[in-house]
Amino acid sequence: MLPFLDAAAPAAHDGGAQLVLALAIILAAAKLGGDLSERLGQPAVLGELLAGVLLGNLDLAGLGWFRGLTANTTLVGLADVGVVLLLFEVGLESTIHDMRQVGWRSLIVAVLGVITPWILGYGVGVLLLPNHSPYVYLFLGATLTATSVGITARVLRDLGRSQTPEARIILGAAVIDDVLGLVILAVVGNLILAANSGTEASLGAVSLLVVKAVGFLFGALWLGTLVSPRLFGLTARLRGSSLLLVTALVFCFLLAAGAGLMGLAPIVGAYAAGLILERVHYQSFSDRGEQHLEELVRPISGFLVPIFFVMMGLRVELAGMLDGSQLGLAMALIVAAILGKQACALGGLGTTLDKLSIGIGMIPRGEVGLIFASLGLTMMVHGERIVDPAMYSTIVLMVLVTTVLTPPALKWRFGRQSV
Amino acid sequence: MLPFLDAAAPAAHDGGAQLVLALAIILAAAKLGGDLSERLGQPAVLGELLAGVLLGNLDLAGLGWFRGLTANTTLVGLADVGVVLLLFEVGLESTIHDMRQVGWRSLIVAVLGVITPWILGYGVGVLLLPNHSPYVYLFLGATLTATSVGITARVLRDLGRSQTPEARIILGAAVIDDVLGLVILAVVGNLILAANSGTEASLGAVSLLVVKAVGFLFGALWLGTLVSPRLFGLTARLRGSSLLLVTALVFCFLLAAGAGLMGLAPIVGAYAAGLILERVHYQSFSDRGEQHLEELVRPISGFLVPIFFVMMGLRVELAGMLDGSQLGLAMALIVAAILGKQACALGGLGTTLDKLSIGIGMIPRGEVGLIFASLGLTMMVHGERIVDPAMYSTIVLMVLVTTVLTPPALKWRFGRQSV
Repeated sequence: MLPFLDAAAPAAHDGGAQLVLALAIILAAAKLGGDLSERLGQPAVLGELLAGVLLGNLDLAGLGWFRGLTANTTLVGLADVGVVLLLFEVGLESTIHDMRQVGWRSLIVAVLGVITPWILGYGVGVLLLPNHSPYVYLFLGATLTATSVGITARVLRDLGRSQTPEARIILGAAVIDDVLGLVILAVVGNLILAANSGTEASLGAVSLLVVKAVGFLFGALWLGTLVSPRLFGLTARLRGSSLLLVTALVFCFLLAAGAGLMGLAPIVGAYAAGLILERVHYQSFSDRGEQHLEELVRPISGFLVPIFFVMMGLRVELAGMLDGSQLGLAMALIVAAILGKQACALGGLGTTLDKLSIGIGMIPRGEVGLIFASLGLTMMVHGERIVDPAMYSTIVLMVLVTTVLTPPALKWRFGRQSV
Repeated sequence: MLPFLDAAAPAAHDGGAQLVLALAIILAAAKLGGDLSERLGQPAVLGELLAGVLLGNLDLAGLGWFRGLTANTTLVGLADVGVVLLLFEVGLESTIHDMRQVGWRSLIVAVLGVITPWILGYGVGVLLLPNHSPYVYLFLGATLTATSVGITARVLRDLGRSQTPEARIILGAAVIDDVLGLVILAVVGNLILAANSGTEASLGAVSLLVVKAVGFLFGALWLGTLVSPRLFGLTARLRGSSLLLVTALVFCFLLAAGAGLMGLAPIVGAYAAGLILERVHYQSFSDRGEQHLEELVRPISGFLVPIFFVMMGLRVELAGMLDGSQLGLAMALIVAAILGKQACALGGLGTTLDKLSIGIGMIPRGEVGLIFASLGLTMMVHGERIVDPAMYSTIVLMVLVTTVLTPPALKWRFGRQSV
């Protein structure tokens, strides 16, 4: 390359050469990891995660290029779209009617799955961090509350189990979890703000958040069911190609964006969009002999979903985690995280449902736990840091272990039940 | 949202809410524009482009959000992947054998299509910019040389004509064009560098570039043909889902990245990958009853390709173009750009091929012209700027007009020929 080309800003846009190289490597790693994982009797997603962990930690051997990919906003964006489409796809497999049948149980599962780990996490703090303030315990417990539904959704699909009642209860509970996570963050944040300024916590701000989130969810389900058939009826009259697919994507992306604007995770909106859409809505497309929506979405998710899981693995820094000083706290936190969610099994009481698989399905913690932890790093009460770097590492380790543990555990549980 | 949330950096990652909103709007605009365009008897891509132009120029009405999307690196990345997949798809429709049959004609078309506009552009400079140096004329001519194959490839596909001999000659010529563009940039860059330092231009640097690029192309075609059947034979034995699709994507992305690393456009590598892959290579997948590759890639390109064309439209700033002072130069440049490529028709001499449609297919200028122009903005010879802002605007207008003109012109020409 000529010297004057390197300096010129416009030439820095390389038409995506770096990007496609990264994509080729990520996809190849995902498929090799997935293959190995399946050969060992585990779901493919576990191999994709670990392929990411492996590549990311090559920086210990001086190869930092892969870890650097976590800062590539395009890849992060593709991963975001990937997990949005995964939840949309999983939502497509169920209907609102299915969800209504498990709604109350999902609510119980979600509430139990938030309260118990919170109390256990608080207890771990009291026992192992005796010189800290109750705010630290409160926050430590809060990092254990939110279930990360991406992993469970993917494992259930890998196992062909995403239409079982257990799966629906878990997915429904994860949506409610997300609303509860928002509430917890608001409550804890308000308490700490109030402690620092010496005022009362504002109940109003918290209530507003909750009303907005719950209102959005019910509003989206109600309005979406009304609008969806008309929308597809309209676009079926447009000229052009890929109209069924693109209409569905626009519908999914709009609900995902709406959820995001209300402070919920976009994947909650995408899951709702999937629940709403039913084959009868796009009958006019099917009548012309077009493929079903599921078949049209599958190649896109086959391309983008592995990117999400490999990128998730790339973020895991094994280095800082492996010194022994925090091992006791980490172990206690992991046990609290896993046991805490087993209270969810009570949501299956009085039925023939497999209670243990509900408890296991709720185990994985993910981005929300990490976001809590990162927020804690920036917060102070009475001059004390809420989360110090050592505690942050233990939280990351907890997220990693719960994430990696779930696929084999679910597979084992569903295997024992037999099909 | 609570105040402490806004300030915290990790919360800035919104799980892709902004991104999916932008995607929903872009896709909806693309499909509405495409519909209108087809109703007016034009190819869908024209409507997608103009939808982008419309949204982008809403900043004249105070709505700058859409224009801002051009700075969103994730969307730019998605668009890059989109055009890579478009060229891969078009390449899949032909084989290396098909290309070999038109190879010499493509070479003639490419060379004529570079030399004639260059001379005409130089002439426009001499006539209308009498007080500038020959380096300016040389550079002005150079901005007219490179054909942007994305538009033509898309129009040919919209019209169901991408397997005609004319289409193959155009696409082959566009690949050769890209190599020639690289040479021209190197030559002109070297001349200017030499003029400034008072030394001789280095023939060695230019030759090296050309050898690398040509070597890569032939090497990729030769090695790819050897490797491809084995690669698919291997991955057919892996466990997991979407293996055929992902193997093909990895193959395509690796060649695209290779082209990029050699200084060529990544789409050149993607097109080569498409040429190389043939159904017999992935026979083992087809035998298991999997869909054909074309069907698997179509939903992904149906999602990503419209993003490329809308983003292309979003970049067009109508404002600065509409004052009259540069109109003479702009007109002359556009005429030179269009007439210059009509020399390409000579590549069809002595055959029954439609010569005019070859000339029309080579008209669109795109990113390469814009990159040349932006480079010119940063270059000086003997204290004179090679491209000043006014000249830059006229080059942008030339790119816009040639791009928007091609779809209706090609459609008109193929319509007259009748099917």
